[in-house]
This record gives sequence, C-alpha cells and structure tokens, in this order.
Amino acid sequence: MAGNSFGKAFKITTFGESHGKGVGVVIDGCPSRIPLSEDDFVSEMARRRPGRTPLDTPRSETDRVEILSGVFEGVTAGTPIALFIRNQDVRSEPYEMLRRLFRPGHADYTYFKKYGHFDFRGGGRSSARETAARVAAGVVAQKVLAPLELRIMAYTLEMGGIRAAHIDFDAILENPFYCPDMAVVDKMKEVLSRAKESGDSIGGIVEVRATGCPAGLGEPVFDKLSADLAKGVMSVGAVKGVEIGAGFEAARLTGSQNNDPMTPTGFKTNHAGGILGGISNGDDIILRAAVKPIPSIMIDQETIDREGHPARLKLEGRFDASAVPRVVPVLKAMVAIVIADHYLRLKSIL
Amino acid sequence: MAGNSFGKAFKITTFGESHGKGVGVVIDGCPSRIPLSEDDFVSEMARRRPGRTPLDTPRSETDRVEILSGVFEGVTAGTPIALFIRNQDVRSEPYEMLRRLFRPGHADYTYFKKYGHFDFRGGGRSSARETAARVAAGVVAQKVLAPLELRIMAYTLEMGGIRAAHIDFDAILENPFYCPDMAVVDKMKEVLSRAKESGDSIGGIVEVRATGCPAGLGEPVFDKLSADLAKGVMSVGAVKGVEIGAGFEAARLTGSQNNDPMTPTGFKTNHAGGILGGISNGDDIILRAAVKPIPSIMIDQETIDREGHPARLKLEGRFDASAVPRVVPVLKAMVAIVIADHYLRLKSIL
Amino acid sequence: MAGNSFGKAFKITTFGESHGKGVGVVIDGCPSRIPLSEDDFVSEMARRRPGRTPLDTPRSETDRVEILSGVFEGVTAGTPIALFIRNQDVRSEPYEMLRRLFRPGHADYTYFKKYGHFDFRGGGRSSARETAARVAAGVVAQKVLAPLELRIMAYTLEMGGIRAAHIDFDAILENPFYCPDMAVVDKMKEVLSRAKESGDSIGGIVEVRATGCPAGLGEPVFDKLSADLAKGVMSVGAVKGVEIGAGFEAARLTGSQNNDPMTPTGFKTNHAGGILGGISNGDDIILRAAVKPIPSIMIDQETIDREGHPARLKLEGRFDASAVPRVVPVLKAMVAIVIADHYLRLKSIL
Amino acid sequence: MAGNSFGKAFKITTFGESHGKGVGVVIDGCPSRIPLSEDDFVSEMARRRPGRTPLDTPRSETDRVEILSGVFEGVTAGTPIALFIRNQDVRSEPYEMLRRLFRPGHADYTYFKKYGHFDFRGGGRSSARETAARVAAGVVAQKVLAPLELRIMAYTLEMGGIRAAHIDFDAILENPFYCPDMAVVDKMKEVLSRAKESGDSIGGIVEVRATGCPAGLGEPVFDKLSADLAKGVMSVGAVKGVEIGAGFEAARLTGSQNNDPMTPTGFKTNHAGGILGGISNGDDIILRAAVKPIPSIMIDQETIDREGHPARLKLEGRFDASAVPRVVPVLKAMVAIVIADHYLRLKSIL
Repeated sequence: MAGNSFGKAFKITTFGESHGKGVGVVIDGCPSRIPLSEDDFVSEMARRRPGRTPLDTPRSETDRVEILSGVFEGVTAGTPIALFIRNQDVRSEPYEMLRRLFRPGHADYTYFKKYGHFDFRGGGRSSARETAARVAAGVVAQKVLAPLELRIMAYTLEMGGIRAAHIDFDAILENPFYCPDMAVVDKMKEVLSRAKESGDSIGGIVEVRATGCPAGLGEPVFDKLSADLAKGVMSVGAVKGVEIGAGFEAARLTGSQNNDPMTPTGFKTNHAGGILGGISNGDDIILRAAVKPIPSIMIDQETIDREGHPARLKLEGRFDASAVPRVVPVLKAMVAIVIADHYLRLKSIL
Repeated sequence: MAGNSFGKAFKITTFGESHGKGVGVVIDGCPSRIPLSEDDFVSEMARRRPGRTPLDTPRSETDRVEILSGVFEGVTAGTPIALFIRNQDVRSEPYEMLRRLFRPGHADYTYFKKYGHFDFRGGGRSSARETAARVAAGVVAQKVLAPLELRIMAYTLEMGGIRAAHIDFDAILENPFYCPDMAVVDKMKEVLSRAKESGDSIGGIVEVRATGCPAGLGEPVFDKLSADLAKGVMSVGAVKGVEIGAGFEAARLTGSQNNDPMTPTGFKTNHAGGILGGISNGDDIILRAAVKPIPSIMIDQETIDREGHPARLKLEGRFDASAVPRVVPVLKAMVAIVIADHYLRLKSIL
Repeated sequence: MAGNSFGKAFKITTFGESHGKGVGVVIDGCPSRIPLSEDDFVSEMARRRPGRTPLDTPRSETDRVEILSGVFEGVTAGTPIALFIRNQDVRSEPYEMLRRLFRPGHADYTYFKKYGHFDFRGGGRSSARETAARVAAGVVAQKVLAPLELRIMAYTLEMGGIRAAHIDFDAILENPFYCPDMAVVDKMKEVLSRAKESGDSIGGIVEVRATGCPAGLGEPVFDKLSADLAKGVMSVGAVKGVEIGAGFEAARLTGSQNNDPMTPTGFKTNHAGGILGGISNGDDIILRAAVKPIPSIMIDQETIDREGHPARLKLEGRFDASAVPRVVPVLKAMVAIVIADHYLRLKSIL
Repeated sequence: MAGNSFGKAFKITTFGESHGKGVGVVIDGCPSRIPLSEDDFVSEMARRRPGRTPLDTPRSETDRVEILSGVFEGVTAGTPIALFIRNQDVRSEPYEMLRRLFRPGHADYTYFKKYGHFDFRGGGRSSARETAARVAAGVVAQKVLAPLELRIMAYTLEMGGIRAAHIDFDAILENPFYCPDMAVVDKMKEVLSRAKESGDSIGGIVEVRATGCPAGLGEPVFDKLSADLAKGVMSVGAVKGVEIGAGFEAARLTGSQNNDPMTPTGFKTNHAGGILGGISNGDDIILRAAVKPIPSIMIDQETIDREGHPARLKLEGRFDASAVPRVVPVLKAMVAIVIADHYLRLKSIL
C-alpha cells in the first residue's frame, strides 16, 4: 500500500530508482508566490553528490534538478511542484553478477520477498540515489520557511569512532566530511582511508540543529514534532537510530539533571532538544542519527542466492567507504521538510 | 491540524485527557469476525497501571476498558471499534497551585504557546494517562496478528543506569520492573528507592523484540517499517530516542562487522534488528527506546509563570520515581499497532 | 481498510451502530479557545430526530450529546473532541425475524458479503442512526466557521414529487418538512400520508445553500471544494445523487447561457453554484442531493436468505414514510464540515 | 494544503499545467509484477485527445506517455510509477490578451483569489489538459483490475439535449462522440455544428458502467464506494453533477418501486446502481455525470479585469464546441482508479 508520501500540509511524494531514468519528487501544498528556479538547487545537490571526499570514487552525477511543473513566471504557483533529476552513468553491466545473489546488509532480500523481484542494478528504489529527491524537496522546504528566522545546520558529529570535540559551524563547509571540528578532520580522513584500503566501510553520527524555530510546532499526540522527525530521519536508508536532545543519555540522568530550568530569558539548558510534549519550545531543535557503515564492501562475504543456496560474494570495483558525509545534507533536508510541514499545519489552527 | 491518528490500514485515533471524563481510542480498519470482549483488555491494562512497583504511589486507576462500538455478538463487526476508559480519582484541587506556573520538563509551556492554555490538572492531553488508550488499541492489534506466529516481548533493559546482563523472557513478569534479568532487580529497586527518597526520578531503556514476524512488512520509502516504528515509539511522551538492531552502536562498527551474513537457514547475526531497507526480513525485530526521567520531581526548581516572571516550584505529594516500567506495555502496544498496520497493508498488494 | 474518517484539517472519525451502546465522533484539528458546551448541540440534534413530522413514528430518541474530551473550562482545548450519543430504545426483539433475510434496498446483503455478517438489528453501522454523529460534528464545524459571516441553510426542495416553487428561508423552521415554501406543505403532507397508508415510502431532493462563504476554499485538483462536498454528501446513506449550481441542468445549457457574467459587484447569475475550478468564488454555494425513498416498507417484497434461497419479506411495526426531513440537518452538517475543513486548509497556505 | 492526491491503497498524485513542460502522475501502491509498457497507454490517450471529432480544432497533441520510474524488466516493480506527458504546441502568445481579464466560467478568478495569480495561458493547472494524467493513471488501474472479470464502459448518454435512446456497447467506438446509439449520432453532430457556428458550446451527460465488479468494494461510512466515485468524478473540471443508479429519478420513486428485488440469481432491477450502503453488491455499477458546456466561447461576454473594472471579452481562434466526448475516457479512468483503490483496500481486510 502506498508509502512514498511524507507530510500532510507540505507533502512530498518521491519516485525513481538508481538505474532507471532518474529520481524525482512531487511537492504538494507549497504556498504560491515563492521565487524558485532550477539554480536554487545547485549547491545543496552538490553537497549530497558522491565524489566529494578525497577518498570517494569519482562519478559523473551532476544531479541537475529539472522543474517539471508548479512554477510560473519565476514563482511557485500553488500547484504541485514536480522535480526530476535524471540519472547519469547508469551502465548496469557491472551489476550483472549480482542478478542471483543477495548482498548482505542490503535490501535485495527483503525487496525480493515483498515484491518478487529485486533490482540488482545498484538497489533500484532502495539505493541511496533515492535521497537526491529528498534533498531537492528540502530546498523548497527551506524556501517555505524563509519568513522565519530559521537556520538549519547538519554536520558529521562522529565518523568511524572519531568524534568532534566541539561544534564550529563555520568549519562545516571547510572540510569534505562536514565535520564541525577541524581538529579531528585528519583523524577522520585516516580512519576512512584505512577502511577503504581494507575494502571495508565505516559509519558515524550526524547531528542536525535548527535555530530560530518558533514555539508551537507539532501536533500531539501522534504527529508530534519529535515523532515526525524520528520518522523522517529513520526513513533514510542508512539510519538505524535517532535521538532528540539528550536522547539515550537522558536515560541515565535524574529528573533534576534532565529538566531544563526555565527563566524569563529562556531555558537554561537544552536536554529537551527544543521539544517538550512533542511541540517545539523555541529553543534549538537538536537531533542525532546513527548512520550504519555502507553494506557494500570489497571483502568476501557469506550469502545466499535466490533459491536459498549458500554462496560467497566479493564485490569489486569502485566503492565509497562511508555514507556519512552524504547523509548530512539528506538529514538537513528531512528536518527542513518536517519543520515546513508543521509550520504550515500550525498556521491552519491560528 | 489533526494529529491524533496513527496508521493507515489499522488506524487508531485517540482522545481524552488526564482529568476529563476519560481517555479512549477509535480503531478503524480492524477486520471482522475476530473474537473480542472487555475482559481481553484486563491484563495488559493492569500492566500499564501506576501503583505496580513497590515504590509507586497507590492509585485507584482500575482502567476498565468499555467497548462502545464495533463488536457484535462477541466478534468484531468490521466497523470502528471505540474503546473508552473512564478516569477515576480526578480531583484537581492539588493542582490548583500549578495554574500559573509552568512545570520544567513538562509540556505546560508548549501547550500554552500553541493552544493559548495548558491543563494544569496533571497535563491534560500531554499526560501519561493518554497512553492507556494506546495499550487498549495494542490489545486489538495483537488480535489482528493472531494468524501469525508472532510474539512481542517488551522489557526494561536498563533503569537508573542498571542494565540487564542477559535476557530471560520468563523473568519479565516475575518482577515489578519488567526486567528480564532477575539478578539486577534488587539493584534497580535500590536505585529507584534512592531517587524517590531524594525526591528525584530516573529514566531507562526499554527494549522490544518481536519474534515470528514475516518478511515483507514495510512500505518504502517513507512508510518503512523502521520509520513507522520510530514514529510510533517517539510519539510516546517520555521517549527521547529510538534505535533498531545495533542502532547507535552500528555507527562504530565496520561494514564487515555490521552486515549480517546470510545462510540457507537464516541470518547469522541480527545487527539489522530484523529490518533491511525498511522491510522486515523475517528475523526478530528489535528496538530500544530511551525513556527520560519523569519531570515531576519533589525538588525545588527554577521556572517562570504565565507572564514570564521568574518563579520557584517545588511539587509535593505523591509521585512516581520512574516511568520506565509503565512505558514497557505502552511500547509493546505501539509495536503491535505498527506491525498490525503493516500486516494489513502488505495483504493489499499480495 | 480504515474508511471512517473525513476531512484533513478538520477531521472527523465516527463510530457506533444503531443497536449498540451509541454513536459518536472524534473531531481532530479543531482550533482551541472556542466556547463549547453540551447545550450547544440540543437544537440541531432535535432537528435530526425521528418523530418530528406528524406522520412519523414517535420514538424516545433524546439524542443528548455527551462531550467526552477536548473541552477545558468551557472552551475547546485544541485536543480531540470526542462526542458520544447513547442509544435509547434499543430492543432488538422486533428484528429477530430479520436474522436470516436480507432486506431489499438495505445494506444487509453487502455487509454480509464484505464482513461475513450483517447487523439485523436495524442495520447496525449502515443505519441512519449513524448520521446523529455527523450532526453533532456539524455543530462544532459551525463554531469553527463563526469568524466568517457564513450562513448555511438546508431545506426540502422536493418530496414525493412535490416541489417548492420558491425559497423562503423563514418558512423552513415553520413546518415539519423543512420546506421553504409554505404553499406546498399541505401537498407534501398529503403525499406522505398516502404513502404511509399504503405502507410505502417516498424520496425527495434536499438543497443546501451557504451564503457568505469567502473565495478561495478548495484544493485542486482532487480536493476541490466541489469534490469534497460531493463525497461528503454522497456518503450519507440515503443519497443517490448530488449536483452543484445548475448541475444536471447545465448539461442542457449552452456556454453562453451557463457562464455567469462577472461585474464589479459580483456574478450576475450563479449557475456555477459558487464554485469555479473547484474553488469557492465568493457567491452562494448551492448544492442539491437526491434522497431515495426509505427501503423499509410495509409491503410484501421478494428477497433471499443468507443461503441464497428465495424468500418473501413483509416488514411490520412502526416505520417512517420518508427520510427527507431527517436528511436536511445531516446535509447541513456535512456542508459545514467540508467548509470548516477547507477554511482551515486555506489558512495553512496564506 | 496538499490536495493533488487521490486514493489510499492505489494512490495517484498528479502534477503539471497546460502550458508548462507537461503533465504527469505518480502512482503509489501498484502491486508488483504487472506487465506495463509505454505502448499500453496509446489507445486510451488517443481517445482523450482533442481533434477527434469532425468539428474539433486540429491540434498536435500526441500525448505520448513516458514511464519515468516503477517499471523494471517490463513489469511493475512495486515502487512508484511516475508517468509524464510532455506538452506540445505551447505557444502562449494568443493568450497574452487574457493576462488581465478573467474568463467567465473559468477558474481564472478563483485561482487569482486563492493563489494571487492565474495562468492566463489556457488555465494552467485548471485546464482540461490536467486530465491527460488521469487517463494515463486509469490505464494502470485497469491493469491492477485485470485479475477480475471487470469491464468498464463509458459513453455519451446525452449531448446538447440529444439523448441516446438505447445502449449498444459496440457502437461506442464507431462514432466520434462515443455515443452508444448510432441512430442519434447525426443529430448530435448537427447540434454540435450549430453551436460551433454561433461560437457557442454545449454540454451533456456521460454514463459509466462497470460490469463484473465483485461485491464488497467500499469502506463505510465515508469511503463508501459511492462517495469515492462521487468525489473522483466531481473532481473533473467540467462535471457539475453525479448520480448513481436511479440517481435523481430515485427522489420521485416510491420505496416499492425503487427497491431492487433479490432473487437467487441476482437483483431483478438495478436502481441501486450496483451499490448498497456504499458497498458494491455485485451488480453493474452505473453512474452518470453532468458535463457543463465549455466556458470558452467566441461570443462577447461581460467580465472584469484584475482590478475589478468592468470589461468585455470575446475570445477568438480555435475552440472546441463541447468537452463531452473528451470527458468520456477521463471518467472511465476515474472509475477504474476508484475501483482499483477499493479492490486493494478490500484485500487488506480479507
């Protein structure tokens, strides 16, 4: 049953596969009269593109976003905005060997069980390629939020066990890992390099922080801002965990430690991550997502084929040793999409 | 905008406040001909009830579930099942002092900012009382899942920093904390007792495990099983984090460590937590939720009043030192609800 | 799959059967701070009640609406408003003879085919009793619309072939048929009386007119105001047709006749029924619904039993010879609900 | 707020404008393994194309459907199917004169009030061009329904006051008006010709009949099959009325006339139009839609400009004198889409 839409007021529906014609998104509910052009997508799309880090495999993904509908005379029309990003470089020959084998850690097996097939050409719909459409939608979400003094930052808090010791927003775009602490960038590079050499991959933790978010966003009890953020973030393929504010650490604090004291000028601490009772409280919204290591590794693995027979699989060719930097702009987009949705929803009851 | 419904095929809509007439839920989409009576709810409702642990404040919540509609001659009719649980013990006098002050860590402030009021009588809609309706809906979800060989266990993995060293399902109902490791129960009791004495509260981690779940549940890319579980779990008031399988630990594993090898008889490990690409893979579904310490503490706190003036607040009277045991049946219910929803959704495309 | 909710911003979920405990509705998305009490429902509920026309069977339905949740200190709280109307007079003995026979024109057969059962006690969920919950929700919808200078009138345009020759709003509440033309009331009474004597029933046409509706309501291309009105009205059991503005007559007009000329002071005619391109144009919204004759008649009919064997059925006892007057407040409610939903939806994009 | 999606299990989201790059649709929820190719769309798209009747203005719309996603190795993948139909012939020069004037009977005025703009180049999103995407989605819906012995016929029951005297399905494709009665085709042509000569337009009535529909489709009380059909049909721009079975005629029948007697071999009559209590009863589903005359006429009309000043408007150039034949395949598509949605929904509860 239909599961490719997200959001209620600002609603996105994505489509497309890694080795088909392209990926895209229809954005429904965007207010009219917002300036929007294809150039607006360039910088965010570039940030998501593979081939950015020194160790990534160079690819020819240019990820030009084409506006198929919804913009008239340079501004949004109030009608659905369809965006399309054509796939480049879609030779499926290297994937032929995968026609019969399930790749461990990938969705091949579950797609096969559910749909009776799996797209051996790089995962099809389950590929990270799908997130390009999310990033494009995130750009439009940011436009919707322009009337607010909102700023969303996303960055690599940790990669391969190397964690940023402090957060310097200015550093984020100064290094290929979107790490907010320049002091650990070399260590991250080293860990990544070592993984790559051994044909292995590493994961990490991405943090997203939204400052300037007004109080009142979120619709209890199910469409709480926290709940929709959790869903949006967990729906990204590589994510296996999400926490808000103190998150799992809160489980070990006492109430007197975890409660954020309130003062006339604001909250003294922010263990709540900007959300109380599922509604934004005006403080920074803070969330972290656990990103698993990319399952495509160049190391011999135990698997089975379509008929359930045992098999060995050793992938070859180009590969990325970590998805973490690429996930950064994707999570930024998802947070923007959730906030835009709740911003429009809040307006309906004011 | 409407945010009190959850699920698409098995859809629940909850209502009610802590100090109104009661809380309830309408379940829409439940198949017909399933035996259901008011007695079916008794045991699960009892597990959620406060006053269970030796240290909880005794309360008279009997939480009898009344079936208002949807059952005819002892079986579900295919029509909406409305369940209602009357509030007992709803004297609001002790809360009068809270009429003007926001309780730190509670939703008073955000409800006030969003709705122009807050329910000083125990939180109203944001109260844990609301979860009684979820537990009732979870009972019906389990009935829907009866054709499957499914078993859902939920338990306190950790409380106040004390963690179960191993999982013994038989132990869960043998102690008031739903702890699966009898060896740490006394330590948990001690930590809880110490917190209570100091007027403070503690949090913990709840784990839920579903065995016997068929492969194929989950609707990528947004209604992934993992994403809907994350939303369902994060929508519970006390939860600040959720992870699936290896979760945040996966961020520190390599791909070769984290990938679950596949064999003709199943997966060798289960770092995926039973979900690949957002679809169940037939292995156990495993998730953990971080439960924050209850914000109602008997310790003097810094806060503000409705006009933003500084104030001090020291709650008095009965209180629970931890919500963790009560959250256990709630999360069990949410997992059952999500799985029931996806079970019915899967049927629509087979 | 769940089908008992209607609306997106102002969302109602109804439940209940004719011979269960009662019928009810959960209203989700209602803004906060709107005064609401149980007395507010009395007059509209009275209008829907059977036993109003001189020829109706007297019944003891008092239809008192109980507010189960969502109101705090006399105003809406922004939380779901649950309303419940207990059934009175629910002896099912007279229905026992219907346990095995499908009543022609009723939903017995289709419920049996779909759900494996049918509620022989007056139709259960398919009974007109279900509309009581809609009328209650309509009262809340009208409250939501209070900031607008909106007035919704509903009336019996035609019954048993007798049609009102002109529309006098003041007449509507002056006669038991809600007929806007006092000159034809006696004729309607006569036709109804004749039908009743012969054990037969009659249908009619209900017209609803909303004046003062602002331009801009409706969300093309599927959630057009006209489309949602059509769905809302057609979802009422007795309705078999719906038309807006000139409706079916427009099929026989030319473009030059049907187009409404525009002037600085408004539209010169209103063939559009206040809706152009699915969006309200500021003029009166006008719709008409065809109400079929009640299928319960006291005349011998050909039918089958559960096993498909031929049978004869002659109902006995009390019966109403027409549902038309009772449908009037129901359609008024549905129009109010649709307009309230679109009013809140419009606000989200302004 | 988002209003461009329709359906819940088989869910379509359309996008695009008459003078942008094209129109399209994303179909979400289509089961996997259904053969689908771009050639499958050719015949239905051709039937919707303007320029079919002898009197239509020739246009170069080829309406080739491009499959952007969701098909893998010739069969549906279970992933969203995105279809795109490029616009041809989109010179907007002839429309420049309309930049400031609202065309009577069109959505220019209401779009301007709602969105702050209107697409003077042929209506933009409100153009009949939008229905091309519906027809394409209808083709996929028919594929979903292939396991059923279902046949959907749509035809012009009446045009310009000329009504088919009987229904001969074989005649439908034998004449440019999709009229099921060859005996009245010449009269229709004559009426259409006369309208065209005078620069005027005519409307009509389209009937759709689905045979072989299984009993059990429809989800009371709001997502009744009748209610969703009414919404789907009324959401088509030109439609101003919809009726099912006896429809408005039922308002003038008695219960004994209108009830369809049941026999062991089926219903004796079909006043219900195949739907009882909102659920299909296994008999033919029959609905009729009132199609208004096209508002674009070559006759001088009274209107206003953007500032509200009075103006005169006389359109010039090519025009179609009736939309009725073009609406026929669109309504066929909408009925197929609704039935496919309910077919998948029914499966979820079996």
